[in-house]
Amino acid sequence: MAGADPLLMIPGPTNLPAEVREALAGPGFYHRGEQMAELIKRCTAGLQRLMGTADDVLILTSSGTGAVEAGITSFLSPGDRVLVVEGGKFGERMAEIARAFGADVTPLAVEPGHAVRPDDLATILRGGPFRAVLCAHNETSTGVTHPIAEVAAAAREAGALTIVDCVSCLGGVPVCADEWGLDVVAAGSQKCLMLPPGLAFVGVREDVWERTAGAGMPSYYFDLRKARESLRKGQTPYTPSTTLIAALGAALDLIEAEGIEGVFARHHAMAEAARAAMLAAGLELFAQEACRSDTVTAVRSPEGIDSVELVRVVRERHNVLISGGQAELRGRIFRIGHMGLVRFEHIERTLQAVADTLANLGYECDANAMILAARQAANAS
Amino acid sequence: MAGADPLLMIPGPTNLPAEVREALAGPGFYHRGEQMAELIKRCTAGLQRLMGTADDVLILTSSGTGAVEAGITSFLSPGDRVLVVEGGKFGERMAEIARAFGADVTPLAVEPGHAVRPDDLATILRGGPFRAVLCAHNETSTGVTHPIAEVAAAAREAGALTIVDCVSCLGGVPVCADEWGLDVVAAGSQKCLMLPPGLAFVGVREDVWERTAGAGMPSYYFDLRKARESLRKGQTPYTPSTTLIAALGAALDLIEAEGIEGVFARHHAMAEAARAAMLAAGLELFAQEACRSDTVTAVRSPEGIDSVELVRVVRERHNVLISGGQAELRGRIFRIGHMGLVRFEHIERTLQAVADTLANLGYECDANAMILAARQAANAS
Repeated sequence: MAGADPLLMIPGPTNLPAEVREALAGPGFYHRGEQMAELIKRCTAGLQRLMGTADDVLILTSSGTGAVEAGITSFLSPGDRVLVVEGGKFGERMAEIARAFGADVTPLAVEPGHAVRPDDLATILRGGPFRAVLCAHNETSTGVTHPIAEVAAAAREAGALTIVDCVSCLGGVPVCADEWGLDVVAAGSQKCLMLPPGLAFVGVREDVWERTAGAGMPSYYFDLRKARESLRKGQTPYTPSTTLIAALGAALDLIEAEGIEGVFARHHAMAEAARAAMLAAGLELFAQEACRSDTVTAVRSPEGIDSVELVRVVRERHNVLISGGQAELRGRIFRIGHMGLVRFEHIERTLQAVADTLANLGYECDANAMILAARQAANAS
Repeated sequence: MAGADPLLMIPGPTNLPAEVREALAGPGFYHRGEQMAELIKRCTAGLQRLMGTADDVLILTSSGTGAVEAGITSFLSPGDRVLVVEGGKFGERMAEIARAFGADVTPLAVEPGHAVRPDDLATILRGGPFRAVLCAHNETSTGVTHPIAEVAAAAREAGALTIVDCVSCLGGVPVCADEWGLDVVAAGSQKCLMLPPGLAFVGVREDVWERTAGAGMPSYYFDLRKARESLRKGQTPYTPSTTLIAALGAALDLIEAEGIEGVFARHHAMAEAARAAMLAAGLELFAQEACRSDTVTAVRSPEGIDSVELVRVVRERHNVLISGGQAELRGRIFRIGHMGLVRFEHIERTLQAVADTLANLGYECDANAMILAARQAANAS
């Protein structure tokens, strides 16, 4: 690990604030004592504010995918018909998980870069009944934010549960679970929450427990009913990552100190900045205008430039990490994460690195103009 | 967290060395880059040495229970008959997991404090066929180490897989997976490995992949076939806890620096010390002599003393954490963990605290005599 730390502008893991790193270096502690119970209580309250819910938020020791699995397997049963919004890798993952545990999956294919149209969803739901609608709120692979409130409204209208993957947006954009009627919300630590990977969270609307009484796919570690029982005692069913939970406390303190609305506004401003800069460079954003994510920006690689190469050079010459495309988008797009600890100086450094690299690869662009456009967009937001 | 850090003498989480805490405070980093691939390679090699295997060891982001679930669900199928050694909470947990995923479980009840008798096991196995034998190597709840090499031999003889929970002993006592024929070995980070909770490990004997081709219970996050595929690229299927893996590297370096044999010898010496002190105090060890664990010592609470109270006073007056009994052993035993970062000074401080508290609760014992016995036993080991 020689040299300066790289700047992480990938869509997670993200840069860690000093306060979080300090908390990570704390002493080991007992996972069932009063200290832990108080910490879990405080963290739960902070997560509830970020999720916009007064109901339970369960803390799991896993990556975000574990939370999605927990949300699916705890409330659905094998054979249940579920409608899954697929417009990228993380929507597809929800379908894979549901299928792995025996659900009868109907995919709703959405063109990558586009958001799901609630009308399309409603039409398919009328051909139901479906037990649940599964959707990623923020599709990390394409930089698209789906209109999740409208998805939930359509699902509720059709009597289906709404199970949402908010892994790459919770803490960066408003999630109003109670207001929007999100039944199950899964999230992870290593995105907007400025933590290392290893913790995951599931918010569960209070009436879901009863609505799904008796349901369940095979599960043990991810059985949320057990997690809920333990939460009543300020515990988790199995030894949780004490260290990461201590760091979660520190991260939530930082978010509260900045103000939740301020954090969301900053994410929006940094997203506006990134988007404006790319447009100023004559590049095309991959996501349609109405659904562009405030936590990750996907950009089409210019004609003749392989984004794998772009990402490599940006890393090697500038010590800045951005991401390429996944699966069929490999080589075709690059992605800039602007989530968690991201300020304008980070955007600026990234733009400089991207502009310089694009120029070296044969695509002329003006770094100063990009940065100017970014600054104006951030200020105007 | 006012005051000095408590001394953790519970059977996990354990005390964290300065080097591990420093690694935990490191910067965030990308989970699919070269840095991670090298780290995973180095950690895998270290874990292989501790497990005594040349085969794959997969790193999971979960607590130890997740590793046990992964080991069971990846290689067994619903309806499979499995024999589970139950002599305490963690054996029972293996049975619970197997049942949750549809296995046909035959429990082999072992009296708490006793080790399973391989002959009993062989007898039941002859009434098979069984697909697998599930056994905790070190039963944390009773301080018993089961004769796992003989268990594995009996299982192999009967054509059954051996799936072992080594969560609370890997890194503290020899585990010779290849030599003993352990097919699947699950372990966790927060015990002998001197790490916080949040990482788990599964060693898989090479021929198991083929022997179980086509098998599998519903799983996704814990699907070890996917983990194995990713390991070939120095990755994990889902974002792992980068920070904890960096700390794992630091912990394995400490173990290598001390020497693996030295680490095992130190664990044995500390266990001998704890046991000798308890006997010198006239207390009764809960585990039978032949099967006493080198990582946790369970002691019967003296007549009239509730171990819940003992544990509470030891914590509040002496800032030392020991454990009580679980389930039906609650109040009846107390347990001293001596795993990971444990040296004689820690044992001594613990004995002083326990002796003082026992005396206050009405059980006379001589702290100096206990410490002397401990020191002699440690030196003689």
